[in-house]
Amino acid sequence: MTDPAPILDVRSDICWSDETSVTVLGRDLCTDLIGSVDLGTFAYLLLTERMPSEAEAALFNAALVSLVEHGLTPNVLATRMTFLGAPESLQGAVAAGLLGLGTRFVGTIEGSARYLAESLATLGADPSDDDVRDEARRVVDGFRAQRAHVPGVGHPVHTPVDPRAEALLDLADRLGFPTTAGRLLRAVAAAASESSGRHLPVNVTGAIGACVVLLGVDWRIARGMGVIARTIGLVGHLREELAEPIATTIWNVADESASRHLRP
Amino acid sequence: MTDPAPILDVRSDICWSDETSVTVLGRDLCTDLIGSVDLGTFAYLLLTERMPSEAEAALFNAALVSLVEHGLTPNVLATRMTFLGAPESLQGAVAAGLLGLGTRFVGTIEGSARYLAESLATLGADPSDDDVRDEARRVVDGFRAQRAHVPGVGHPVHTPVDPRAEALLDLADRLGFPTTAGRLLRAVAAAASESSGRHLPVNVTGAIGACVVLLGVDWRIARGMGVIARTIGLVGHLREELAEPIATTIWNVADESASRHLRP
Amino acid sequence: MTDPAPILDVRSDICWSDETSVTVLGRDLCTDLIGSVDLGTFAYLLLTERMPSEAEAALFNAALVSLVEHGLTPNVLATRMTFLGAPESLQGAVAAGLLGLGTRFVGTIEGSARYLAESLATLGADPSDDDVRDEARRVVDGFRAQRAHVPGVGHPVHTPVDPRAEALLDLADRLGFPTTAGRLLRAVAAAASESSGRHLPVNVTGAIGACVVLLGVDWRIARGMGVIARTIGLVGHLREELAEPIATTIWNVADESASRHLRP
Amino acid sequence: MTDPAPILDVRSDICWSDETSVTVLGRDLCTDLIGSVDLGTFAYLLLTERMPSEAEAALFNAALVSLVEHGLTPNVLATRMTFLGAPESLQGAVAAGLLGLGTRFVGTIEGSARYLAESLATLGADPSDDDVRDEARRVVDGFRAQRAHVPGVGHPVHTPVDPRAEALLDLADRLGFPTTAGRLLRAVAAAASESSGRHLPVNVTGAIGACVVLLGVDWRIARGMGVIARTIGLVGHLREELAEPIATTIWNVADESASRHLRP
Repeated sequence: MTDPAPILDVRSDICWSDETSVTVLGRDLCTDLIGSVDLGTFAYLLLTERMPSEAEAALFNAALVSLVEHGLTPNVLATRMTFLGAPESLQGAVAAGLLGLGTRFVGTIEGSARYLAESLATLGADPSDDDVRDEARRVVDGFRAQRAHVPGVGHPVHTPVDPRAEALLDLADRLGFPTTAGRLLRAVAAAASESSGRHLPVNVTGAIGACVVLLGVDWRIARGMGVIARTIGLVGHLREELAEPIATTIWNVADESASRHLRP
Repeated sequence: MTDPAPILDVRSDICWSDETSVTVLGRDLCTDLIGSVDLGTFAYLLLTERMPSEAEAALFNAALVSLVEHGLTPNVLATRMTFLGAPESLQGAVAAGLLGLGTRFVGTIEGSARYLAESLATLGADPSDDDVRDEARRVVDGFRAQRAHVPGVGHPVHTPVDPRAEALLDLADRLGFPTTAGRLLRAVAAAASESSGRHLPVNVTGAIGACVVLLGVDWRIARGMGVIARTIGLVGHLREELAEPIATTIWNVADESASRHLRP
Repeated sequence: MTDPAPILDVRSDICWSDETSVTVLGRDLCTDLIGSVDLGTFAYLLLTERMPSEAEAALFNAALVSLVEHGLTPNVLATRMTFLGAPESLQGAVAAGLLGLGTRFVGTIEGSARYLAESLATLGADPSDDDVRDEARRVVDGFRAQRAHVPGVGHPVHTPVDPRAEALLDLADRLGFPTTAGRLLRAVAAAASESSGRHLPVNVTGAIGACVVLLGVDWRIARGMGVIARTIGLVGHLREELAEPIATTIWNVADESASRHLRP
Repeated sequence: MTDPAPILDVRSDICWSDETSVTVLGRDLCTDLIGSVDLGTFAYLLLTERMPSEAEAALFNAALVSLVEHGLTPNVLATRMTFLGAPESLQGAVAAGLLGLGTRFVGTIEGSARYLAESLATLGADPSDDDVRDEARRVVDGFRAQRAHVPGVGHPVHTPVDPRAEALLDLADRLGFPTTAGRLLRAVAAAASESSGRHLPVNVTGAIGACVVLLGVDWRIARGMGVIARTIGLVGHLREELAEPIATTIWNVADESASRHLRP
C-alpha cells in the first residue's frame, strides 16, 4: 500500500501576496516601494533586509554601476553567440553570459570581500598604519602559500591604476564611510606588488569588496552584485546585437581560422 | 599549405577602455557615471543609448522594482535547488532561475510591449475612445485566432486587480506621460474579459509593456527588463537560503512524495 | 495563527531507490542495466519508456552521433568563453553552450519532427508518390504563409547535400524502417527548393526529425536529442581548450576589432 | 584614424567540414562513424582523442549509464521548474538542471578522479596492500586537514553500500582492467570510515573516478561525464513532465508552505 502524501514545512520571510497586495520584507510593494525607491535601493533592501541610508544607497548604486560594462568581454561574447542560435530566448542568452562570472573575473569580488571582512574584524575600529600593513602582508602571504592570486589587485588593461576602483574608494571617503577598509585594501595592493615584484593596483573587484564590507553585505553573496550589474550590461549588448549584429562574423572567422590547417 | 589567418572586422559602440579610463556610450564611466547615476538610470542609458529625463528615470526604476520579487516562484525554486548542488557557483544558481523567464511568466512583457507598440503606431497621437476600443478588440481577436492567451492581462493570484499594474499606470499618469498606452491596455483587458467571459485585469507585465512603449525601449529587448529585475530577487533568495535553507527539505519531500507508489 | 503545513502529493514513475538498489522504469539499474546497455540504448529507454529493438538502438545511436560535433560553432564559442571566466564550473560552461540550441540551429529538429509526425498521420501507411508530393507542398505552403523557414531543409555549408542526412536516411532504409518518412522529407526538400527557387537539400535536423518519427519519440522532446548530442561535443571542446586554449585570443581580437573606431 | 582590422589566428583539431563531408578527429563522420559507433564510444573518442578498445567502450558506457538517473533530485526539480516558465526552450530547462552539478553532487567525480590519478602515479604498477593502505590514509588525512569531505565515499541514501559503485568496480574487474584503482578506492573508504567513526561506502562518483583513471580520461574533464549522463536523465524527466506534470503542484505547495506565517 502506498504511504500517505508527506507534509512540506518550509519558511521564507521575503515576500507574500494575496489577491490585491504584495508585501516584501514587511513593506507594501505597491504603495511603499514602486515609485518611491530606485532599483539599487531596492536591491540593497533585498540583499541586507534593511533600507539603506542615503550614503549607503549612493555607494551601493555606484558599486553596481562600476561593473555593468567593460566592452566585448568573454561573457558578452557568450551572450551574443547564444542569442544567434536562440533569438527567441533572451533570458537564455543573458544566462549564458552570466555563467562565466566565476573565479577568474567578477567572482573575485567574493574573495576580496571575504579577506577584507575577516581582516577588519581582526584589526578592530581604528588600527595603526603598522597594524594595517602587517595584516595586509599576512593576507598576501596566505594567498601565496596556496599559490593563488590575491583577489582584488591587478588588472590586464588598467595596469597603472584601475580608475573604477579609485572612483569607488574616493566616493566612499566623500560619503563619510570609515576609511579602514580602503586603507587595508591599498596596503594589500602594496604588499602584493612588493611580493610579486610588479605594480599591482587595487582593481574594481577589490574596491567593490571594500564596499561590500562598508555596506554590511554578506561576502557570501557579494558575487551577486557583479551578477546583477553584468545582467544589465548583457541586455545592453543584445540591444546592439539586434541593431548591428556581429556574432555571425565572429563565428565564421573563428571557425575558418581554427580549421585552416585541417583543410586539404 | 595552410591559408593565412583571416581578418576579424566587427564593431561595437558601447564601451572601450584604455589603461586609465573606461568610456561607456561616450561618457567617462569613472568621472561622469560612478557616483552620479543610480543603477536604474544607467540601465536606461544602456537599453536606449540616451540618458533618461527625471520622469523617465522614475518610471523605468519603478517598472523594474515591480518585478523583482513575488515569493517562492518556480524560478526561485530552480535557483535554490541549483545552489544546493553548486554553492561555489552563485552565478550558476542565478542563471538557472533566469532560464524560466520564458513565454509563460515574465517573458509576456515582450508580447504586451509588442502589440502596444504596434497598435499605438496605428492609433496615432490622440485617438478617440471608440478607436481605442476597436483597436483593443482587434488585438484580442488576433490572439484568439491563434488560440493564444492575450499577454498582459489576467493573473492566477491577483484576480480582481494586479496592484503592481495599477501602481505603475498611476505613476505614469502622475509623471505626465501620454495616457494612450494605458487607455489601450485597459481596453484590451476589457475586451479580453468580454471575449473570455471572465474578469481579466491588466497585470504587471502588461503595465510594464506600457512603460516600455512610453520609455522608448525596443520591445525586442523588453523581456530583458524582467531579467534584470528578477536577477536581484534571486540573489535575495540566495541570501535567505544561506541563512535559513529550505532547498533540501523541498527536495526530500518531493522525492518521497513522488516515489511512494513505486516502493514495495 | 499560522495554517498547518500543507501536504505535497505528486507522482513520478521514472526512478526510485532504497539503501541498496536503484530502479529505473521497472528495471534494476545495477543488475540489469549497468554493463548491459550502451548509453544510447539507455537514453532511448528514458525517452520512450521502452527498450529499443536492435534496429531502433542502431538508428537512435546514429541520430545522436550525427549531431555531436560540427567544429567551432556559436555554442562551442559560448562554452569556451564561459570556461575562461569560470574554469571551476565545467557544468556552467557546457550549460552556456546548450543555451543556443534554439529555433535557429539544433532546435529545428523539433519543427521537422512535428510536421513529419502530423503529415505521416494524415498520409497513412502506404501513400502514393502523388499523395506524398501534395502533402509536402502543403507543408511548405504552410511555412511560407507564416513567412517561416521550412525546418529540416537547407544548410549554409552543406549546400548540395548534407552528408549526415544522407547517412541517416540510408541507415534507416538498410535497417528496414518504413520508407514513408524519408520519402516525405525528400519531397518537402524538393517542394521547398521549387518554392524558393534555390536548391535546398534535406539537412541533418530534418533527417533526425524523420528518425524521431520512426523511433516513436515524442516530437515535443525531440530537441532533447540534439541537447544530449551537443553536450558530448561541448565536453570534447573543453578537453581541447584545456590543452590548447584559444578563448583568450578570440576575446582579445574581438574586443580590439570592435572598439578600434572608438579609440582616440 | 581607425586601426586596420586585426588578424585572428587560432587552431582547433576536432572537426572541419566542407560542402559534402564532416571530419571528426581524422575520421569521416558520415562514412566511418554514423551507423558504426554507439554514442558512448563516440563520446570516448571526443574525450580522449582515440577510439576505445571493446573493454574500454563497455566500461565507459557503464560509467555513464550509472549516473543518468536518481529520481527527483535537485537538478531534476530545477529542470521541471524552468520548463514550467519556458516550455518553448527545452534546452534552457536542461541547462538549468545541469547547473547544480557542482562540488556537492556529481562534481565529486572530479575530486575522486584527481586523487586517484595522483596516488596511482605515486604507487606505481603493483603496490603492496600496505602501500595502498598507507596511501589511502594519506589521502584521507589530506582532506581532513582542509576540513573537506573525502570525495567518492559516503551517500545519504545508500548507507551500507552504493550498489552502482559495486556494479562498476565489478565490471572493471570482469573486463580485465588493472585492480589497483579499485583497491585504492576501497582503502580510501575504509580509512575515511575509520577516521570519521561511521561506515562510509565507496559511492558512485568514487567508482566513476576509478573508471576515469582506468580509461585514461583527464580528471579535469571528468565532471563532464556526469554532465553528459545527467543531460539524458533530465530530458527523460521533461518527457514525463509533459505527460504527467508536477511542477505547478510543487511550486504552489512550496509557496503556500513558506509564506503561511506571513499571512494575516
